[in-house]
Amino acid sequence: MRDDKKQVNGSYGDIIGEDIARVEQYIRSNLVSKQKILESALKELVEAGGKRLRPALVLLSGKFGKYQAKKLIPMAAAIEILHTATLVHDDIIDEAKTRRGMPTVQTRWGKDIAVFTGDFLFTKAFLLLTSSTAFENLQRLSRVIKAICEGEVEQYQYRYDKNVTVRQYLKRIGRKTALLFALSCFIGAHESGCSRDAIRSLGKFGFNFGMAFQITDDLLDFTGDPAKTGKPVGRDFVQGVYTLPLIYTLNSPDFRDETAILLDKQGYEPADVDRIVELVHLSGGIDYSRRLASRYLKRAITCIKTLPPNPARTALEDLVKGLMDRNH
Amino acid sequence: MRDDKKQVNGSYGDIIGEDIARVEQYIRSNLVSKQKILESALKELVEAGGKRLRPALVLLSGKFGKYQAKKLIPMAAAIEILHTATLVHDDIIDEAKTRRGMPTVQTRWGKDIAVFTGDFLFTKAFLLLTSSTAFENLQRLSRVIKAICEGEVEQYQYRYDKNVTVRQYLKRIGRKTALLFALSCFIGAHESGCSRDAIRSLGKFGFNFGMAFQITDDLLDFTGDPAKTGKPVGRDFVQGVYTLPLIYTLNSPDFRDETAILLDKQGYEPADVDRIVELVHLSGGIDYSRRLASRYLKRAITCIKTLPPNPARTALEDLVKGLMDRNH
Repeated sequence: MRDDKKQVNGSYGDIIGEDIARVEQYIRSNLVSKQKILESALKELVEAGGKRLRPALVLLSGKFGKYQAKKLIPMAAAIEILHTATLVHDDIIDEAKTRRGMPTVQTRWGKDIAVFTGDFLFTKAFLLLTSSTAFENLQRLSRVIKAICEGEVEQYQYRYDKNVTVRQYLKRIGRKTALLFALSCFIGAHESGCSRDAIRSLGKFGFNFGMAFQITDDLLDFTGDPAKTGKPVGRDFVQGVYTLPLIYTLNSPDFRDETAILLDKQGYEPADVDRIVELVHLSGGIDYSRRLASRYLKRAITCIKTLPPNPARTALEDLVKGLMDRNH
Repeated sequence: MRDDKKQVNGSYGDIIGEDIARVEQYIRSNLVSKQKILESALKELVEAGGKRLRPALVLLSGKFGKYQAKKLIPMAAAIEILHTATLVHDDIIDEAKTRRGMPTVQTRWGKDIAVFTGDFLFTKAFLLLTSSTAFENLQRLSRVIKAICEGEVEQYQYRYDKNVTVRQYLKRIGRKTALLFALSCFIGAHESGCSRDAIRSLGKFGFNFGMAFQITDDLLDFTGDPAKTGKPVGRDFVQGVYTLPLIYTLNSPDFRDETAILLDKQGYEPADVDRIVELVHLSGGIDYSRRLASRYLKRAITCIKTLPPNPARTALEDLVKGLMDRNH
């Protein structure tokens, strides 16, 4: 599952804080409808917020070239709206009751409204992008959304599959999450006229950061405090979505059998969920996942090492450190 | 609800038949994915087909200007893909088991797949349109999709509402269906360099034809043969979607009470459904709806009366006649 809130402690306030606020304003002024229910759903979504991480990546990447706030803000807003669209649709699948601690659109209004709120957001995002970015970037974006859809379908396809491999998991989160992070950086850099090398480096940074971000998010299903994450421990695997820590456990000869038997039970007792979480800890699934996340974060840092050491690079490095800190 | 199959008997084969086949081919070659489930879902959707009415409207309207098949085919395909996206999402809401006589994506694969198949289709449609139409048309299209979403939300909002008015119904189907018909004509004419008057006339034709089309489709819920329509009689109102014939009945003093009591029952027996259908017939709801559809069809004809009498106009008139015949 995907969520942003309080996930990242990096501070990018000084360098792009004002422009993030303008992105926020831009999103707000674009998500309106005369249809009252839709309007309420949109308003709640905007207010539920999130860290606006993808917009931050667009803007910060833009700082490595000729930074034009006017050009980047609609684009950053569009990518965030697009991300919100996928979250709203995601929640239909997950039957999620809360997202970022707030009731989801589908819980409040029903899945009917959620489907069309998502479609509305998609449309809005596309229109904004159409008017703000180069055609080739639209094609890139379209490929990324295609990949997100494929990633989600794949996640569904492998639900309750105890033989899913680490490799399949990584491919899935690449599609589901990391590619949009990569594209955010790529588009910000591209539209600001960065060199080809810089664009590629920032894109790769985004991808690696996105991979670490998703692994860290998936870890919260086992290590998170429900009061903070807004979702119960074990929600992912109860719904059949087996993420990295559990996949690791299922691959550990000493832990596989007990874990598999528990997962196969019809209807989990709270004690079953607790025991599965415990087995994941005991098997080393948590440590393994943290190490892998760290590896991606280190790779992310390496990707931007050759870029000029400016405040934007420091801000990106701070994002990485913020995520690294969460993992220890 | 919306469906095309066998709804319209007009023949436009002679004048645009080959290009419709090329639209078909274009759709087929664009809806592919390496993800196997997605690929299967897409394939089935393409094969289930439909009359490709919206593409026909794009192409026929183009015939009133400088017709360029190369330019119009991607656009016509994109509009059809967009329409298919809304149908797939529509089916999630309706929990429809069949569409065009075939199992729906959600029946076959689950609503998870349906949500993302729809998103995939949306993305594809946008990308095709981005590369084939003027920016102003993209903005128009975006407004139409916004309206479709609002129309769907409205339909949901007024579910089980026995006080819904004819006016509200007409506004809803305008948003849900007629605007995309109007846009299909508009874009076809616009991109072919028709005069402003011709563009407007064709757009209005599309709108009126779309209104009649949806009313006729909604009539099938009361008059259709399940073997032909592929859906059980009364499915709309059983799901709380009250369409024109029933709205008329609920506004008839002699029939309102019995109808309202039946509609309020928890869980309908087959006999209840039959009786509601009977009441709709007895109250004159069917005749009224047929008359209203006819009125829209006549208006549609009037809209294109001032256009040059060419084979395309004849084909559009044939479409109208085809729908008119279904209503008698």
